[in-house]
Amino acid sequence: MNFRVVLYALGGVLRLLGLIMLVPLGVAYYYGESLTPFLVSILITTLTGFLLLSYKTEEEWMRKEGFAIVALSWLAAAVFGAIPFMLDGISPLNAVFESMSGFTTTGSTILTDIESHPKGILFWRGMIQWLGGMGIIVLFIAILPKLGVAGRQLFRAEAPGPTEDKLKPRIKETARILWVVYFAISLLQVIALLLAGVSLYDAINHTFTTMSCGGFSNYALSVEAFHSPLIEFIITFFMFIAGANFALHYRAIYIDKKFLLKDDEFRFYTVLVLSATALLAILLWRDMGTGIFNSFRFAIFQIVSIITTTGFATVDFNLWPDSAKMVLITVMFIGGCAGSTGGGMKVVRILILLRYSRAELFKAIHPKAIKAVKFNNKNVPDEIVNSIVSFVVIYLLIFLSSTLILSVLGMDIITSFTASIATLGNIGPGLNVIGPMGSFDPIPALGKLVLIANMWIGRLEVYTVILLFTPEFWSK
Amino acid sequence: MNFRVVLYALGGVLRLLGLIMLVPLGVAYYYGESLTPFLVSILITTLTGFLLLSYKTEEEWMRKEGFAIVALSWLAAAVFGAIPFMLDGISPLNAVFESMSGFTTTGSTILTDIESHPKGILFWRGMIQWLGGMGIIVLFIAILPKLGVAGRQLFRAEAPGPTEDKLKPRIKETARILWVVYFAISLLQVIALLLAGVSLYDAINHTFTTMSCGGFSNYALSVEAFHSPLIEFIITFFMFIAGANFALHYRAIYIDKKFLLKDDEFRFYTVLVLSATALLAILLWRDMGTGIFNSFRFAIFQIVSIITTTGFATVDFNLWPDSAKMVLITVMFIGGCAGSTGGGMKVVRILILLRYSRAELFKAIHPKAIKAVKFNNKNVPDEIVNSIVSFVVIYLLIFLSSTLILSVLGMDIITSFTASIATLGNIGPGLNVIGPMGSFDPIPALGKLVLIANMWIGRLEVYTVILLFTPEFWSK
Ligand SMILES: [K+]
Ligand SMILES: [K+]
Repeated sequence: MNFRVVLYALGGVLRLLGLIMLVPLGVAYYYGESLTPFLVSILITTLTGFLLLSYKTEEEWMRKEGFAIVALSWLAAAVFGAIPFMLDGISPLNAVFESMSGFTTTGSTILTDIESHPKGILFWRGMIQWLGGMGIIVLFIAILPKLGVAGRQLFRAEAPGPTEDKLKPRIKETARILWVVYFAISLLQVIALLLAGVSLYDAINHTFTTMSCGGFSNYALSVEAFHSPLIEFIITFFMFIAGANFALHYRAIYIDKKFLLKDDEFRFYTVLVLSATALLAILLWRDMGTGIFNSFRFAIFQIVSIITTTGFATVDFNLWPDSAKMVLITVMFIGGCAGSTGGGMKVVRILILLRYSRAELFKAIHPKAIKAVKFNNKNVPDEIVNSIVSFVVIYLLIFLSSTLILSVLGMDIITSFTASIATLGNIGPGLNVIGPMGSFDPIPALGKLVLIANMWIGRLEVYTVILLFTPEFWSK
Repeated sequence: MNFRVVLYALGGVLRLLGLIMLVPLGVAYYYGESLTPFLVSILITTLTGFLLLSYKTEEEWMRKEGFAIVALSWLAAAVFGAIPFMLDGISPLNAVFESMSGFTTTGSTILTDIESHPKGILFWRGMIQWLGGMGIIVLFIAILPKLGVAGRQLFRAEAPGPTEDKLKPRIKETARILWVVYFAISLLQVIALLLAGVSLYDAINHTFTTMSCGGFSNYALSVEAFHSPLIEFIITFFMFIAGANFALHYRAIYIDKKFLLKDDEFRFYTVLVLSATALLAILLWRDMGTGIFNSFRFAIFQIVSIITTTGFATVDFNLWPDSAKMVLITVMFIGGCAGSTGGGMKVVRILILLRYSRAELFKAIHPKAIKAVKFNNKNVPDEIVNSIVSFVVIYLLIFLSSTLILSVLGMDIITSFTASIATLGNIGPGLNVIGPMGSFDPIPALGKLVLIANMWIGRLEVYTVILLFTPEFWSK
């Protein structure tokens, strides 16, 4: 492990973060709020950045350093990004929780009275989700596949091969294109929300947290605060887009729309959304007595919000009957598409595992028939399946351990269960204590640390973080 | 599909079942109870058996017929074995539920006032678990591996390869040896219970349901009814034995004890039991204020009971704090060892998946290093891993569907969740409505049908039953 290379890279990340903090500083200035939180944060972050940049080196980084840089960048961003929250009076642990929840686009919040915080702070809270979302698509689509031989292996572990679309040969160009697509769709959402009558501040803040599948809202009531089916449908539409593969969006926009419709993952994603919506709408209509329109309205919003792992709410689903809650719990284990800003296990992994299991099943009848698993008309190589299996096993193991720890700390089963999947899957809210109108604040400190780890591990799709904690990683 | 062959084999099964019903008839006679339920059942079962045996054929059965015979034998046994319960006044659906719960060694009960039923009926209820348990070990150790080329494939799907110990070359000889081992250990348990002061009737009945990991008790309070730590420890010991591989028991008894201790699965099974017991004991001591002795006593009994999927209880764990319940829920997903009478996903599958995931993790650091997954010092072939993956995916999918259906039918989440795993894993009791002192009776009829299917599917390790419901199975 070449520590110098890692520290140098982290220096670059912090310098950039300090620079970005000028934006919420401007917002605070515009609203006449205290500038101290951001000025101090910029100072500390930038100085630390320059300090680390003094480890300048011309050495190339290899796969191990690559893992370390990625994992530690998110951790460093979470820690330094928490400084404004601390200076706003939030305890250090809570501030890091909120900041990690931001950069990982999780959206779990420890705030109990959201509207009492300054607009600059809430802007920062939304903005770090948008940055985190952009970081994730650039990381998974542009950077990881580009690490050469080692990178292929790395990419294979992170984002299943079928999404490996080399948009453009060079990494910077790919990143630039993704950035343009991400920015352009975000701009469209801001305009749509403005046209629907949302204030500019709210529009930008909710676009930040929609496009990143983040789910922070500057209202305690989340999207329910707007009391508008139109605004809800706009946000539903953009959540759905954000939960799909941005490499596909690029191709759909620049080349041909049918790239989206021909993609196996996007089609399965659509089927999942529609069938879960139908089931949930029927249950709400049957058990809650909401009319047909409202049942559909609440159902499609909540299903898209959970499957994409955004985590917005238009209703306190904590008050729904257990049948409806169970539908939400089920979709919590799916997640967005690969190459999206959504978290979770990812639609493509579920799809490939299902096809693979079906193929194995038929081998029991026809042992000699070779039935390859296909994805987008190509055979899925064994290594892809292997890496998916290993991912899912480790993911479920972490989920289970987290649930056990929380329940040992005194949380009830449903809270422990949903808090674990909500953070590991970067969804945000869960049920009971941590329902959509609740807060993660009542969870004991050790539990918060576990959940912070969940968000970090889940966002970087397990391997990148878990490897740092193995002795093999640090041995020569 | 050669229906004639299948019907002929089922005829043999029913004729045997009719013969076996003479035993509870004798018990009913001894206790001076009505003989009608058993006389009628023997008549119907035997007649149907002879009717089917008229499809006599010299044709050999192939793999498809093998699947059909195995799956339909359990179904037929459950249906005809339910007749005594029906004649005891239990509704047909409930009777089939109870009978399927017996033959699959699940132990979920719909009885609400157990002690009110005749001794002959309760004897039959215990005895069908013992028969089911014997059927399972003979099926998985002796029959399935013997189906030739096709059989290897079949076996591979059912019991992971590492347990494929050809005890003796010929199928009947293997079955006979297993039967002797099963019978001998059962006899030991009866003697141990008698020495501890249990009545002969109770000793035989609880041995039936211990050795089969079944868990039916003729007392509503289950094993708590004895109020004796000694009896609890005896039952704990024999549950632990029943949850381990009977092929290993044979070798330990006839060849060398160290076969058990050298087996990877048995060692992991022991580690799991001990660590879960330690955790649970600490939680009970901390949260329930039971002393050190009782905390350990309740913990080891309940952990062994759940891991082996027996399902006995010495305390109403429904009243435990959520932390302790969560430990039980976690071990519900493990199950016994391959080749045992226990259900669940099986220790060996969990162990191989964990080793496999760890190996994949290190490939991310050292892509060129080939690190094979070992089991008992042998490399685990890819096909074994593939079949495990497919098994686990389908298993979890069925679990999830079942949980969803039950919650849609109006059961709460914890009841739906634990009823699904308790039946699919052939454990027996769950939490809330279906706690250890509760009953499955309040579940709606459709829910009961789903749970009956779960027991059947889970007991035959998914493939055997699921294949019957695919069009490919019935096509030429
Ligand atoms: K989120
Ligand atoms: K059982």
